[in-house]
Parts: sequence; structure tokens; C-alpha cells
Amino acid sequence: MSPADNFTIDPWQITEHGLDPTSMARAESVFALSNGHIGLRANLDEGEPHGLPGTYLNGVFELRPLPYGEGGYGYPESSQSVINITNGKIIRLLVDDEPFDLRYGELVSHSRWLDFREGLLHRECEWTSPAGRTIRVRSSRLVSLTQRAIAAVEYSVEAVDGPVRIVLQSELVANEQLPGGPEGDPRAAAVLEAPLQPEVHHASGTKGVLVHRTRFSGIRVAAGMDHVIEGPERLDTVAEAESDHCRISVTTVLEPEQRLRLVKFMSYGWSGTRSLPAVRDQVEAALTAARYTGWDGLIAEQAEFLREFWETSDIEIEGDVELQQAVRFAVFHVLQAGARSEERAIPAKGLTGPGYDGHSFWDTETFVLPVLTYCLPGAVNQALRWRYTTLPLARERAAQLGLAGAVFPWRTIRGEECSGYWPAGTAAFHIGADIATAVARYVRATGDEEFEREYGLELLVETARMWRSLGHHDSAGKFRIEGVTGPDEYSAVADNNVFTNLMAQTNLRAAAEAAVRHPREAGELGVDTEETAAWRDAAAAMYVPYDEDLGVHPQADGFTHHQVWDFEDTPPEKYPLLLHYPYFDLYRKQVVKQADLVLAMQVRGDAFTDEQKARNFAYYERLTVRDSSLSACTQAVIAAEVGQLDLAYDYTAEAALMDLHDLGGNTRDGLHMASLAGACIALVAGFGGLRDHSEVLDFRPRLPSGLMKLSFSLLVRDQLLGVRITHDGTTYTLRRGEVLHLRHDGEPVQVKAGSPVTLPTTVPPAQERCAQPPGREPARRQPQAGLVAGKLGQQDHLAAE
Amino acid sequence: MSPADNFTIDPWQITEHGLDPTSMARAESVFALSNGHIGLRANLDEGEPHGLPGTYLNGVFELRPLPYGEGGYGYPESSQSVINITNGKIIRLLVDDEPFDLRYGELVSHSRWLDFREGLLHRECEWTSPAGRTIRVRSSRLVSLTQRAIAAVEYSVEAVDGPVRIVLQSELVANEQLPGGPEGDPRAAAVLEAPLQPEVHHASGTKGVLVHRTRFSGIRVAAGMDHVIEGPERLDTVAEAESDHCRISVTTVLEPEQRLRLVKFMSYGWSGTRSLPAVRDQVEAALTAARYTGWDGLIAEQAEFLREFWETSDIEIEGDVELQQAVRFAVFHVLQAGARSEERAIPAKGLTGPGYDGHSFWDTETFVLPVLTYCLPGAVNQALRWRYTTLPLARERAAQLGLAGAVFPWRTIRGEECSGYWPAGTAAFHIGADIATAVARYVRATGDEEFEREYGLELLVETARMWRSLGHHDSAGKFRIEGVTGPDEYSAVADNNVFTNLMAQTNLRAAAEAAVRHPREAGELGVDTEETAAWRDAAAAMYVPYDEDLGVHPQADGFTHHQVWDFEDTPPEKYPLLLHYPYFDLYRKQVVKQADLVLAMQVRGDAFTDEQKARNFAYYERLTVRDSSLSACTQAVIAAEVGQLDLAYDYTAEAALMDLHDLGGNTRDGLHMASLAGACIALVAGFGGLRDHSEVLDFRPRLPSGLMKLSFSLLVRDQLLGVRITHDGTTYTLRRGEVLHLRHDGEPVQVKAGSPVTLPTTVPPAQERCAQPPGREPARRQPQAGLVAGKLGQQDHLAAE
Repeated sequence: MSPADNFTIDPWQITEHGLDPTSMARAESVFALSNGHIGLRANLDEGEPHGLPGTYLNGVFELRPLPYGEGGYGYPESSQSVINITNGKIIRLLVDDEPFDLRYGELVSHSRWLDFREGLLHRECEWTSPAGRTIRVRSSRLVSLTQRAIAAVEYSVEAVDGPVRIVLQSELVANEQLPGGPEGDPRAAAVLEAPLQPEVHHASGTKGVLVHRTRFSGIRVAAGMDHVIEGPERLDTVAEAESDHCRISVTTVLEPEQRLRLVKFMSYGWSGTRSLPAVRDQVEAALTAARYTGWDGLIAEQAEFLREFWETSDIEIEGDVELQQAVRFAVFHVLQAGARSEERAIPAKGLTGPGYDGHSFWDTETFVLPVLTYCLPGAVNQALRWRYTTLPLARERAAQLGLAGAVFPWRTIRGEECSGYWPAGTAAFHIGADIATAVARYVRATGDEEFEREYGLELLVETARMWRSLGHHDSAGKFRIEGVTGPDEYSAVADNNVFTNLMAQTNLRAAAEAAVRHPREAGELGVDTEETAAWRDAAAAMYVPYDEDLGVHPQADGFTHHQVWDFEDTPPEKYPLLLHYPYFDLYRKQVVKQADLVLAMQVRGDAFTDEQKARNFAYYERLTVRDSSLSACTQAVIAAEVGQLDLAYDYTAEAALMDLHDLGGNTRDGLHMASLAGACIALVAGFGGLRDHSEVLDFRPRLPSGLMKLSFSLLVRDQLLGVRITHDGTTYTLRRGEVLHLRHDGEPVQVKAGSPVTLPTTVPPAQERCAQPPGREPARRQPQAGLVAGKLGQQDHLAAE
Repeated sequence: MSPADNFTIDPWQITEHGLDPTSMARAESVFALSNGHIGLRANLDEGEPHGLPGTYLNGVFELRPLPYGEGGYGYPESSQSVINITNGKIIRLLVDDEPFDLRYGELVSHSRWLDFREGLLHRECEWTSPAGRTIRVRSSRLVSLTQRAIAAVEYSVEAVDGPVRIVLQSELVANEQLPGGPEGDPRAAAVLEAPLQPEVHHASGTKGVLVHRTRFSGIRVAAGMDHVIEGPERLDTVAEAESDHCRISVTTVLEPEQRLRLVKFMSYGWSGTRSLPAVRDQVEAALTAARYTGWDGLIAEQAEFLREFWETSDIEIEGDVELQQAVRFAVFHVLQAGARSEERAIPAKGLTGPGYDGHSFWDTETFVLPVLTYCLPGAVNQALRWRYTTLPLARERAAQLGLAGAVFPWRTIRGEECSGYWPAGTAAFHIGADIATAVARYVRATGDEEFEREYGLELLVETARMWRSLGHHDSAGKFRIEGVTGPDEYSAVADNNVFTNLMAQTNLRAAAEAAVRHPREAGELGVDTEETAAWRDAAAAMYVPYDEDLGVHPQADGFTHHQVWDFEDTPPEKYPLLLHYPYFDLYRKQVVKQADLVLAMQVRGDAFTDEQKARNFAYYERLTVRDSSLSACTQAVIAAEVGQLDLAYDYTAEAALMDLHDLGGNTRDGLHMASLAGACIALVAGFGGLRDHSEVLDFRPRLPSGLMKLSFSLLVRDQLLGVRITHDGTTYTLRRGEVLHLRHDGEPVQVKAGSPVTLPTTVPPAQERCAQPPGREPARRQPQAGLVAGKLGQQDHLAAE
């Protein structure tokens, strides 16, 4: 839970000074590079020491059996686990025949930094070998955002204090030995040993290639490398290959201040269907193109891609430079996860680690896509098209479960349900509505009618059909959805979960509306007016439980009658509760792992009055322990809405610092994409007050005392809206486009090109801070600087007036 | 589902004519012999052909890992599986060097019969070998009810048509190869291969012994055999032993009509703690004693034991000879399961097969013990003392689950929880109250104060403590029990299951009352008056949900609001539903696997009005599919109570014929002890109307038109009450004892020795038969004979008056 003391704070980069051998795996996740297709953990160039070696290709997995003590109908028989594929990052170095290994000799200096505008991971170190020879190593690494199959490293070694004989071994290594994961923690991925079966190995000149195939999933994986070598005139190069190993060795002698520079291009490709020569040719072609572009070309393309990205995506903060850094870190990693995933899933950890077996959950549609929708909508298009490709599997699953339409998997890589515990898996049917909501949001925000017609409509229709068959009308005509699990994983299999019912309502309505917009395509899907009427009727009759006595919404039927968890007698070491208490006890009591009813108030804010929101929020704050990383951001959003601005600020910081401060203790297994995206949501939907329930964006800006300014941009139907919030006012600027209609504090506003509109930023009345379970309060965010503190005082004064 | 056509109907025995090779396993269960300690499936003497070889020792099991696709806190890591131990039944026969095997040669005749008064399984067959030699084989087998460690066989072979050379090989065989069970059916036991590791093998003279030990559970098992051989003068005997195999061979030549007779004594012993010599000596001592008693002595003891047993336990029926046979079959097997289990569990299948892994469930306390309480109370004492011995494990489990007191396992052999699916296992907390109720019933029926003081009190106290900590008071002061699973396995993890809450109420009250009766012992258990007051208060405040709109009790909160299962569109081949529909769908709809609310109306009849009973019964009849064998008997009892006598008769027959007609299709894995005991309950509590909620037994006798007479006996505090019911009247006779108070149709009655009391048998008003889900109606019981049909007509006439 300790902050990363060796990381320094800088608004545009993360820098690590020195090397903490006990937290290498965490740094490997933090500094991981990815374009959504290839993921490289920040393992050292020389391979060792490491925390957890990791090279991933989106969609490459192995099957493993899912066992059950007692089986049941419809239980999935196998799961899919992301695997560590051929490692191309390795460049080993021998200095006078001694391996360059930071555990031996003397490490004079070592630093790494990840720059969000460059998209490069740099490393610089000076090392004295056990025999006393000092060298300087510099490397820069990238995973190309422009050339999807390509990663590259520029590596140089320089003699400092005398002539040294240098050997560089640049390698491809398959089936690396992996350290075991933490015992019994279901969140860590099952480690799969030697999943790759060799098919081809080849090396000649400066090039090498390995092709493997997974045993059970039958996926062919090709990895290639090529090199540009610069150094003293006398350079020997040797190329060697074995089934799991490919090596280009370069030998020379360096005089002091002489350098040996190696540019390594790596390319990756995979296919479950294409032939061995086809897959091999594909990676060799990508290599050729990358070599043609060259290292300088690749870094220039990368910088240009990122320049454009930040123009639409930056979130600027004044008053809290650590939060500023954390938020840019978050935006950068969300970009990396989604940029080039292209009809593949965006996993919960992106491609930064093996956590959760590399599975995708509802996280993608609920937390990641809302952020990408307004800054990189093309990535959302791709992510939803991936869901579309899995529709046949989802229809099969629905049929197996006796339902109409499509049932999407709770956790998966390729589309098959991989959950081995149905009450917290298959029963979480809200995944269908989460997808439908993401579709509707994307279409509203982009106006991408072609997408709606070709992909979106069918997703909406099939999920609506599922809801219509899952729910039923009671004798009073209310539409009920029973025996399902909502977002909160400390409850399961309950009746009329408010979040689920409201999301299903949205889903049913969105499907009916889309069918009206695209009557021909809807007809082809068998939708007629009877069916759309049935959807509308079910939506209109949707039952939403309410506890009149307490004046709050129960999370699901009966929830508010349950015993309240004994928080007083739950010591800090018993969190997360799921590792110390049985599900049966968690499920039957009032204790909330993560925002559920509170999330309903965000995504379906229109279904609650302001008074209900305030009462519900206060009620659930006392019950919510945040054992999930998918909670703080949502609590931040609603805290801001109900006027608990400092609390919202604390939650925002928690969401943003989840990985930089390793708050969950499991950043080693990969970054928490939903929490990172959630930090952006906390700022934009929380302090920006953005709600996008309808065609017109709604803003209710307000700032906590700790922040002086918040500005962000939103891409809306190819127009770019800039929003700049200070305590004095909020300015809307149309940075691209002609005119945009929005609402500010409920009032319609028209923003025209060249005419920024400034309106007052509401200061909500002071109120008592809501209470959390004892010991589960978020850390109070401290003022960051003298100037800020000064301004804080002033703000406090204003608020007290 | 077809009746066993090769079984003939006889009131005191089951006879099988011929041999149906397709249903051998079923016959092996039906003809299984056991004394509760040793169980022998009715495999043929010569070992093959077989359905499923089986020799069991109560308490001997092997551990197997319980795997989970996704683990969770408190999940059991291993399960216990009953194992097929050393088979001592085998006597192979060679006829002129051809093995006697019914699959070859010609089977002239073959019959087996099990006599309930003798406790012997007889076999007679005539066989012509492929070479044309005819022999006659007769055998009789017993598992001694008087000498717990002993089984024996009398085997004779006779030459029919010419001199034959005979070799008999009498064997002990360990680690027999077993055929695989039906794939994917969770009800069939996992087959464990070669679980026995050899320790000792020895043979000499006519004796042999094998000692083995299980690998993981560390249980030592010893099996011994000795023989008495009679035949022609020239007899050769050879003794041989290997690690898994022990053989005594006898050779002779038989002239026509000459016989070779072998009496084989087998003894078994096991221990998890005692030394190898100790366990071996124990079986050799038992062998010596059995040989001393001799075959004739053993069968005489067996007959005497059974004569005494039937005197107190017979249920006599007039008008339905098949039902008469089935009920005696049921009583006999319940006896076999419980007679000598002695501080071991009574498994759901007794010792008749490996079904349910040999586990004990709530079946024992809820169905088997209520029958044994009134005919063999010593067996109940032993069974509950077994539960007592597991209290330390149950306290540990409670602590692990964060509860006070003791949590007994849903399924187990030794006492550890072996359920791999907590919603249908651990969550079924009612097991605690089932045990407590059995304790209270036993104490009421026997007056065994010593048992209550030494064992019963602690069981009551620790289960009451569990309930007090599991439930909680709501703001209105009602005591609620949430997130638990009741008897019906098509619902799970619901709030305020009526059965559970009422049983917990009984449990809490019984504990408070017992603590008052035994203040010193209660004090030693830490019980003070505050605690007993808290139990009484919780019991008094117990919440029992009721649906005012429908005028019925929901099985649990919200049940009656759920969607009704689509029975119309569920074809017959989709039953049992659990093999064709996911739990999630079953749980969230109104569909009932087995009596739950209806069982509550039996065991807590005092908590419902007559009108509620009638309405509830009709309501749940329409929802109950009887995919469990633990349902028909309960439905029979309440059907009788609400006046649906013919329906009650049909359910009684279904419960009684469960195994003889193989109604569940799984009799091969062992007999359904709860259903067999349930048949007795259906008659005594259904048509006899017996309720034992209080000190005074309550009778409300009534007969269906198909039965002319029903009589049974009850042992109550060492007095023996005979009850004889005809349509004309009910006669109570005190066959042992001085005076007994009871109630007949609610009116107090005093029965004195020598003065039988006859009172009218109520004829309830004719009413419309309750409906069941389409296709799930019980088979209508047909009139059995001309005479009966004649009487039926008369009865119909009377009923219509």
C-alpha cells in the first residue's frame, strides 16, 4: 500500500530512480508498453532479474480445464488463459565475459522513464562489473502505435574506463520459465508451463524467426527480429536458432567512450486458421516494413500519433501535480490498451500482465469505452465489433441457458464463457446491457450510422431479446428480473437488482429505437412491431424496488432488510473480505464490495431524484468497503453530484493512484484498466458533471477545494469541445466544428466556433462528510503546494460564506 | 422406470427368477445385505458377471481433492469417497476345468430370494457347462446382525448327471477393477481406482487374511476368511496368498447327487489409529467366534434378532400385497442400514452401493431416524452419538464460517464438509435443526435422560448457538435468517425459508428446554439464563413470511412473486430438470424439486392452520416435480392430512417402490434409504396421521379406498403400542406396558394394558384431486385384486354418502 517512493512526479512522465528488487514486478506493469495488439512488460533488456516476464499478443491464449467439485448443467468445461509468448525483448550483454546483471558488480546509477508524449520507455544505467570495468547502457523501447505488428528497441553500450570486450546476444526466447503466482489468490492468473510447441526456427544474418503453436487452443504464433548494428569497425555477427531459442550475437571491443548501438525490430503475428508459411511471411513482411521506416521513423510516427491523441484526450489539472501525472498515466495506458486491439477484446489488465487470466469483463464497456468514446472513438468501434464477432457464441450460450437472444460471457478471451462460478459469473447478466449501453453511447457520440446498421443494431436486438426472455411480468403487470447478480460481488443471485433492471430498461428502449431507425435491417433480424412493442412495454413496466421506510433504494429486493455487516469487529487485515469470509456470509449481509446502486445512479441518473441520490449515496457509503478497484471512481462521480466534493476528490485520487501506489497490492499482475479509465471518469463525469444519457451532453461542473482548474476535451460527432473549469467559472470552447448544443446545470447552452461561453461554476452548500465503514475511509487528499494551500484557504472562506 | 418383472410378489420376501444381464446392478442393490457396519452388494458368488462389485465397511473412505474453477474462502479442499474394500464374497467354481460362468453354457434355472424374517439371501441354480455337464449350486449368504464383524456363506455344489471334477476357489480380493459410472451424473460416486495399499497377506489351512491401508485417509482395513468344508472323502485343500489376493482351493470329484458344501466365514475390521497387529487380531478373533457359533448358530441368531425386530416394527397392510411387500422390504433395509452402524454415519444409500460417494446427508435425521425411533431406538442413539463425535469438527467449521456453535456438514462420511458447491451444501444450514429435532424426538420417545445429558444437550446447545448467530433481529424486532438454502434443491440461498425458520425455532426452544432440565451440564457448556432467554426470544420473534394476496406461505421471501416454471413446454425427457437446465434458471423460478414448505407442514404442523395446509398443499403440488426421491413420502403425509387420500396412496406407493421399480433409474448405485424410510412415514404419519410434536402422540387415522387395513406398532418409552386402522375404526392396543396417553383426531385417549380402545376412522369429505405439473403426476395406484375391487366399490359407495 506504500506509494512508489522511487517514482518521481512530473506531469508528462513517470521516472524511476534506482531499482527496487522487491517491487520489480510492479514496475514492469507500470512501465509496460502496448498498442492493444502486442504487450511488453517492462522486463529489463537483459532478461534478469525479473519480477514476472511477460510478452503478450491480444487473443493468444491456451485452454485449461475448468474443474468442479460438483458439476452442473451449463457449466463451462474449459477456460482460456493468456500466455506469455515468445520474448523478443531480450538483449543480453557480456562485459569481458561477465554477464551484465544488476545483482552483481556495482550499479552506479539506474533510471527508467516512460514519456507519455513520446510513447517510449527509456533506460539509462552505469554499471561496474565485478572485475571492475565500468560501462554505460542506454536503451529506448517502443511498441508501435502506427505499425501494429512492431516493437523495437534501441540499445547502446559505451565503455567508460578502459577497453572492454563486449558480446551482445539479441534473442527470441519461447516457453520462458515463469515464477509461480501468489497461492490461492483467484485474481492471479494460472501459470501455464511451456504452452508453445515449436514449428519453425530460423536465423541468418541479422534476422531470426520462431514459429510455435499452442497445444490445445491451436493458435499459431510467429515472432521475428531483425537488427541494425553500429559500432567499431571490427564487429562479428553470428546467427543461431533452436526450437525455442533464436540468437543474433554481436562481438566487438570498445575503447573508452566508444559505443556499440543496436536497433532491434521485433514483429509478432498469430492466427488460429492461417497456414504456417502465411503466418511466418506476415511477420517477416512487417519486419521489412519496420526496417524500412527505421528507428528514427518509428519514433517520429509514435510522437505524431501521440500529439494528435493528446490534442483530443488530455485532462489538465491545476493544483495537484501528482494527480495530474496519475491522470495522464491513466489516459496513456487506456490508449495503449485500446489503440490497436482491432476486433479483439480489451482485457481487464490490458496487455500489461497475466492477472485475471487475461480475461475481459464488463470493465471494458462500463469503464474503458466511455473514456475512449470521446477521445478515440475508432477504438470503441473496434472493441464493439469484437463483441459483434462473438454473437454466434453468445446466441449458443443463450440457447444453452434456455434464453432468447444472446448471453455474453462474464469473462472471456475469445468469446466463450470462462467463469467457473456461475453466481458471480453467468448470473451477472448485466454484461448484456453494459454492451448495449456502450453501443448506444458510441452511436450518439459519433453519429456512426453505418456502425449502428451493420453491428450495433444486432447487438441491441439480441441483448433486448435476452432481457425480454429473462424477465417476466408479475400479476400486477410489473416487469421483474429475478435471480441475477449485479455489479457488487458481495451480493449474488438476487431479485430485481436496481442497476440491472434500469440497465435492462435502457437496453430494451435502445433496441426499440434502433429498430425504428433501421427498419429494413431490423426486419432482416426478424424484428417486427410486436417485438419492439414488447420491449417498450417491458421497459415501461420495469420494476424498481424502493424501501419506503428508509427512503432509499435497496440494491436488490430485500437488501435493506439484511443484517448489516459487523464492520466494527472486522480488523484491517481481514480485507479484502472475500479472502477471509465465505461468500455465503457476504451475500446475506449488507456489505458492498463495489458501487452497484451508486453506479446505477451514475449511468441512469435520470431514474433518481436529487434527494434520492443524496440519501442513497449516504446509505451505501456506510456499507461500501471498496474491495474492488471498480468502485472509487463511481463513488467519486456521485459524491461530486451530491455535493461531497472533498470526498469526491479523495476517491478520484484513489482511482488514479491505484497502480502508481499499488493500492490493491496486485499491480504486479498488471494494471487495473477500469480504475485508470475510472480516474478519467471521476474527473469528467464527477467534477465536470458530464452525463450523456441523451443526445445533448449535460454538464454540472464543480471543483473540490484542492483543485484550481480542470480542463478536458470531448470529441462529439467530429466536433471537439474544450471544457475548462475553475472555481470562478466554466468555459466551453468549440475547438473543432461549428456549433454544439449542451446543458450546463440543466440549462441549454449553444457553443459556436470562435465564441467560448463562460458560465458560473456552482458551489454546492457545505455539508457533513458521508461516513464509510470504519477503517475503509479513502485517504484524505492533502494540499499539494504552498500556492495551492493559499488558494485553498481562500476557497474555504468563500464556501463558508 | 419399468417394474422389475422378474421379481415376484410375496409379503415376506423378494424373489428373482432368472437373471437379467441388463439389470444386474439394480438387483445387486435390491438384494444387498448389511448390518450397518459391513455391506455386501448381491454380486454373484463367482464374482462375474457383475453390475457393480461392492463390499463396504461403514467409515472406510478415501480422500479425493475437491477442485474448483474459481476457489473461495472456506471451500472444502477434499472430499471423502466410500471405497470398495476387499471382496470376501467370491467363491469361484470350476466344473471339469470350465469356469462356472452364467454367460456360457446353459442356465437351466436360476433364482434368488431375500427373506425378511430370516435375513438371508438364497440362491439356487442349475447349469449345464459348455461341455455338457450339469451341476446344481445352492448358496445362502448373511451379514450377521448379531456378530457385527461377520458375514458368512453356505455354498454347495451338486453333480446332476455324471461324475465331475470340481474346484472351488474361495477368495479375498482387494482392489477389484470397477466399471466406470455414468458420465457427468453428479449422483454417481466417483470411482476410485486401487485405493488399498497392501500391508499383510497370509493364508494357511482353511484360513486367509489380507490387511491393507488407504493411501490418503490412512485407514487400515483387515479382511479374514475361514472355512468348513464337507464333501466326498477325497478332498484336497490348498491355501495361497498374495498382496491383493488370498485363495483357499478345494478340489474333489463328485458323483451324481454327491455334494460339496463349503461354509465360508468372513470377518472385517478397520481403524484409522490402531496398529497393524491389533487390527489383524481383531478380525481373526471375530472369525474364531463365528466359527465357534457355526453356520447353523449364525442363522438361528439372525432369525431370532429379526423375530424380535418384526414384533415391534412390522407394518401390515391389507388390500395391496405389492405395497405390503415393498413396505417390509423398506423396513428391512432401513434396519440393515442402521442396526449396527454404532457411532458411524448412516449413509444416504446405506451400505448398498457407492451412490453419493457414500455420504450421509440430512436424510438420516429427517427420514431414517424418525422410523427407527419407534422401533429400534438403540440405533438412533448410536446414530446421534456419531453426530456427537463430530462436534469438534462442526465447531471448527462454524468458526471458519464466522458463526457461533456448530455447523454440521451437508454431506460427509467422517464429519468434514464434503460439498463442493456451497449454495446447495453449506448454505443448507437446516441440517443443524434436523439433527436437533431428531435428538428431541428420540429423547421424547425413549425418555433416555442419560443420552440427553451426555450427548443430546450439547448437540442442542451448539446448534441453537449457531442459529442465534446466523439470524438477526430486524428493526421491527422479527428474527430473520437470510441467505440460506432449504430442503428444495431447485431454490438456493434465499431469505427466510419457512422450513428453516420453523426448524430453527424448534431447535432454539428445544435447547432452552433441555438446558432447564439439565442446569448443571448446561452450565458446564457455558449456558446461562441470558443465553437461554436469547434463544427463547429469537424463537418467539421468528419471522415466517406469508403471502396475504395468495393466502399461501412462500417457500422463502419472494418465492411466490417468481415466474412459474414453464411446465407446458418442458418435455418428459428433460426430467430430472437439473440435468437439462442451469441452476440459475431453476433457482429463480417457481419450480420445486422436493417437498420444502410441504415438509415444514409435516414437521411443524402446529405452525399452520388446516386451511393454510390445504391451500399451501394445493399451491405447491402444482409446482413440485419430484426430481428427488425425498419428496413423495412427504407429499403423501400432507395429502393424507388435507384429505387427498387417493393421492396420498399414490405417493406412498411411489416412495415404497422407488427401488423395486427403479423409479429414479439409479438403484444400481444403491438403495434410497430416505425413500424407503419415507414409505413407512407415509403410512404411519400419512394414513396413521401420527404427529409427535409434543410428549403425547397425536393420531388422525384415515385410509384410502385401496387399503382395507393398516396396522403398525410404536415403541414409546419401553411401551409397545399397536395401532390397527380399518375403514370402520381404529384400535389402539397396548401390547407392552401399563398405560399410554395419546390423542385421536385431537381428543385425548388413554390406552391401558389389556383394554384396546376402538374409535371411528374419519372419512374426510370428497374433494377434487390436486393437480401436479403436467407429466409429473404420480402413477395412479390400481386396485390389486378382485376382493379388493369389490370392497373398493363398497367403500366408494360409503364415501359418496
